[in-house]
Amino acid sequence: MNIYEQRIASLRAKMKEEGVAAYLILTGDPHNSETPLPYYGAERKFFCPFSGDNAYLLISQEAALLWTDGRFFISARQELSGTEIALMEMDSPGVPSLKEYLVSHDLFPLATSFLIAPVDFIESIGQLGEVRDLSFSYLVSDKPELPRDPLFELALPFSGQSAESKIKKVKEQLGQAQAVLISTLDDIAYLTNLRGHDIPYAPLFHSYLYLGEENVLFVDPVRVPETYSATLVKPLEELLPYLESVKDVPTLLDPVNLNAKLYGLFSSPVNGPSPSRLMKAVKNPVEIENTIKTQIKDGTAVVRFQMELEKTLKEKGVTDEWSLGLYLHKCRQSNEGFIEESFENIVSVGSNAAMMHYAPSEDKYSLVSAEAVSLLLDSGGTYFGGTTDTTRTFPIKPNAEFVHDYTLTLKSLIALSRAVFIAGSNGRCLDGLAREVMWREGLDYKCGTGHGVGYMNVVHEGPNAFRYKDAGRHDGANIVPGMITTVEPGVYKEGKYGIRIENNLLCVPAFENEFGTFYKFDTITYVPIETSCLDLALLSQEEKDWLNAYHAEVKEKLSPLLNEEEREYLAKKTQAI
Amino acid sequence: MNIYEQRIASLRAKMKEEGVAAYLILTGDPHNSETPLPYYGAERKFFCPFSGDNAYLLISQEAALLWTDGRFFISARQELSGTEIALMEMDSPGVPSLKEYLVSHDLFPLATSFLIAPVDFIESIGQLGEVRDLSFSYLVSDKPELPRDPLFELALPFSGQSAESKIKKVKEQLGQAQAVLISTLDDIAYLTNLRGHDIPYAPLFHSYLYLGEENVLFVDPVRVPETYSATLVKPLEELLPYLESVKDVPTLLDPVNLNAKLYGLFSSPVNGPSPSRLMKAVKNPVEIENTIKTQIKDGTAVVRFQMELEKTLKEKGVTDEWSLGLYLHKCRQSNEGFIEESFENIVSVGSNAAMMHYAPSEDKYSLVSAEAVSLLLDSGGTYFGGTTDTTRTFPIKPNAEFVHDYTLTLKSLIALSRAVFIAGSNGRCLDGLAREVMWREGLDYKCGTGHGVGYMNVVHEGPNAFRYKDAGRHDGANIVPGMITTVEPGVYKEGKYGIRIENNLLCVPAFENEFGTFYKFDTITYVPIETSCLDLALLSQEEKDWLNAYHAEVKEKLSPLLNEEEREYLAKKTQAI
Repeated sequence: MNIYEQRIASLRAKMKEEGVAAYLILTGDPHNSETPLPYYGAERKFFCPFSGDNAYLLISQEAALLWTDGRFFISARQELSGTEIALMEMDSPGVPSLKEYLVSHDLFPLATSFLIAPVDFIESIGQLGEVRDLSFSYLVSDKPELPRDPLFELALPFSGQSAESKIKKVKEQLGQAQAVLISTLDDIAYLTNLRGHDIPYAPLFHSYLYLGEENVLFVDPVRVPETYSATLVKPLEELLPYLESVKDVPTLLDPVNLNAKLYGLFSSPVNGPSPSRLMKAVKNPVEIENTIKTQIKDGTAVVRFQMELEKTLKEKGVTDEWSLGLYLHKCRQSNEGFIEESFENIVSVGSNAAMMHYAPSEDKYSLVSAEAVSLLLDSGGTYFGGTTDTTRTFPIKPNAEFVHDYTLTLKSLIALSRAVFIAGSNGRCLDGLAREVMWREGLDYKCGTGHGVGYMNVVHEGPNAFRYKDAGRHDGANIVPGMITTVEPGVYKEGKYGIRIENNLLCVPAFENEFGTFYKFDTITYVPIETSCLDLALLSQEEKDWLNAYHAEVKEKLSPLLNEEEREYLAKKTQAI
Repeated sequence: MNIYEQRIASLRAKMKEEGVAAYLILTGDPHNSETPLPYYGAERKFFCPFSGDNAYLLISQEAALLWTDGRFFISARQELSGTEIALMEMDSPGVPSLKEYLVSHDLFPLATSFLIAPVDFIESIGQLGEVRDLSFSYLVSDKPELPRDPLFELALPFSGQSAESKIKKVKEQLGQAQAVLISTLDDIAYLTNLRGHDIPYAPLFHSYLYLGEENVLFVDPVRVPETYSATLVKPLEELLPYLESVKDVPTLLDPVNLNAKLYGLFSSPVNGPSPSRLMKAVKNPVEIENTIKTQIKDGTAVVRFQMELEKTLKEKGVTDEWSLGLYLHKCRQSNEGFIEESFENIVSVGSNAAMMHYAPSEDKYSLVSAEAVSLLLDSGGTYFGGTTDTTRTFPIKPNAEFVHDYTLTLKSLIALSRAVFIAGSNGRCLDGLAREVMWREGLDYKCGTGHGVGYMNVVHEGPNAFRYKDAGRHDGANIVPGMITTVEPGVYKEGKYGIRIENNLLCVPAFENEFGTFYKFDTITYVPIETSCLDLALLSQEEKDWLNAYHAEVKEKLSPLLNEEEREYLAKKTQAI
């Protein structure tokens, strides 16, 4: 028995004692964070070697199964091979969903932790059979500590709006409710103008925010800067008794995000997302101006990365993913205001890039030779002044199939980037523009076309997104001026290559007339898009014009920050086609 | 005081007696029919001269207001002018919604008939203040009788599936429910294979269908053919006592469509749409084959209409909307199997066509002169063998602006018609393809791009549609093979012209590969699209290829049904560009 089998065996023994048919471990924390606080995220990893996000691990006496989404199919297959854990590919034909599986195998009573599960989730599972609030996380050894590092506060030149004013605005939008309990860490960071380092690659901190008769931030008080005064501060231990004391106040609670344990305390819940979700997505003028400056700075790091890649391959004929990532980190670190990467660097050569969220690690990475088809770089930074998320795919020895698919990817990106649309359009409708370019050719990518980007916050932010499918995460918001959303179409061919090109789009007004108010996008990522591997015959004149105008802007914006050699390099990379 | 003012005045007196602040008259019947049974539809028309669909009439002591949607803005302005009734343009900037208005003017207690209002609607209004189930429809004089005409049954060569088999299939999909109450007349017609003539232009009949331990059709029994045996038949008067006797059975009820009165009878409702809504939308092979034959027959009527239009204008220099409509009716009547128009003929010249749902009447129509810009024809037929819905815009003396907008409309139609898309796509995502062509040029049409089309049933059918906005009518369904949906983009310029081109699209499989299952559309409307007023410079080669291939098919399909003169005319109209 390997270590995971041993652990699952002891879990099964405990399950038997408790009389539950199955145990469900979500990838989550009490805040429904995409990347859980490490303290909470440790449980799934204790029982299962899968390293990605967004997964359910289900253990019954007979089976162990992991559901995850299309971004992780290839890496999950590799990581789970040799274990007893079966991979269940979400949304793939013939693969039962978690619910279908629970019903067909009659896995009730089902145990899961109500502290981790959003109430909506528990309610929908609870319609199928008995669900018990039961955690076996005490079996997990070596859980990380809860964090205690000091937080930092964003001054007005960075936030553009005081915490007091944001909180006031939230409270004006409570409708029938008289209070709101906010558990999502990105909303709390936005509203308090505080930041921390509790989650890797996200400047968030472990806390809850209650806005009612009193405004209270529940967080370890020693962590809070002395100057902070926007709310009362109480220790996390006081959360439950405090909520108990206000449980009869009609309170706005978000069933999609709030865990079932806290939700269950309230007697008069008013269901709905916190107004802060939309407020946060619509960046204020200071945030926009800072972000554009940050994007320009950050663009230089990617240009320098590409220079380094080409130079090393030319001089030495080989390099590797890990050292390229380190070089990129160095480039970013030399940028003023850089805090940390906004997510783990994805530097993936050839077929590694077909795994959408493959990332090299110090003890597992691939060499990059001059014979590789291509190298994909998806990376970004959190700076004092904004968050970036950029992908470029660099051809090394591209074949005809790559050239075709790379050109299609660019066409898909351009289709959405140059869209003009009427007020009231959402990302579901706009996604069709990017997708159809792929679908027509029998291709598709198993992820959203784009997600909102936070401001010194999580790099995956809602409610704006470009997704033709309802992912059930409030992502059907209308796209309005001030929102920043990525556009990142791609082609992923297992065993061959992965192609993705990703920019950040700022929604801005286009024009108004008798038919309505129209919006469009400004691309605010400033990095050349490689043109040497384009099949120009596949591009329309409009597409060429778009690319040439984009490159002219990239050249103008980045050149002042580069030395002469870099400027010459950039000039070549941004030449009109 | 005009007649409407008198009626509203007496209504206000009654409202005062009952102590309600406002009275809300929906455009509806107990079945949530788009066009209400005339018996129920009479109430709004008694108090208000507006003739369109989809409207709320709200009467308070101070104001009388009519909300309606963009299709009817222009006609409503005309019809309401000179009355005290103010037009509230739904979804227009600055215009409060019904709910916003009720709240800001504190119009509670609000009276409305729970027999007419779907339960979802009552619940959402009820969150704002007190709503009373109170009708003043007794004030309406000369209400039409409830219908008593005999129904007819579709044999298998027309239905493709027996009523018994359809009902069995519904009952297999009830999930936790043990019964279903169906109140929507289009679903009842579909499931029973019975048809009637109770609503103008829709072969429906006044009834309710309960499928549970017994299957019971509630309808006037004398109307039912003797051969009908798929369900028990009980008179409408027995509905309430019967439902009372089964009220504790967990029953699937559709809160979007079922009226609040009937919904309120049940103690264990299971909320959701009836499975028949999706079953009905996915046409079976017999329905598809019949519909294609019907579309070909019906296409000849539109070709003959255009011939007549051109001939009369050439010979006499003038004709009129009404006589053109009569001519069209004659052409359809000569087609085998024709039952009736599937909706009122829209024959609208010049600026009349800017009113999306303008239709001429015997005592109000416009002349069509050789100086008019264009004539729009939107019409369709219900046949033994299917339902059609076709729009063509015929240039008469087109100017440059018209040519530009007409070409754009065609581009928009082609963009959606030639789409290829992955299984799991819905009409919200696909709508973007048609819309963006318009939005880019600062244009928009204030209606959906397309709706499902019934089979010998209502011409506006759900749940399939092409709508970028959520209209809250279960119209976000994935588009799957067998669905028939219209595509009908347009440009409407008040005082100038209206342009619309409309085909019916049948979703069919495209291909399957490692990336998924892909679908596409077959256009199954066979009528030439006028090419003389196209700006060819605006069309891409792909668009020209699409149009030429379409015209080749139209010519091939229609020619065998035409005489020699007509065939020659068709050959000209379908020449490649």
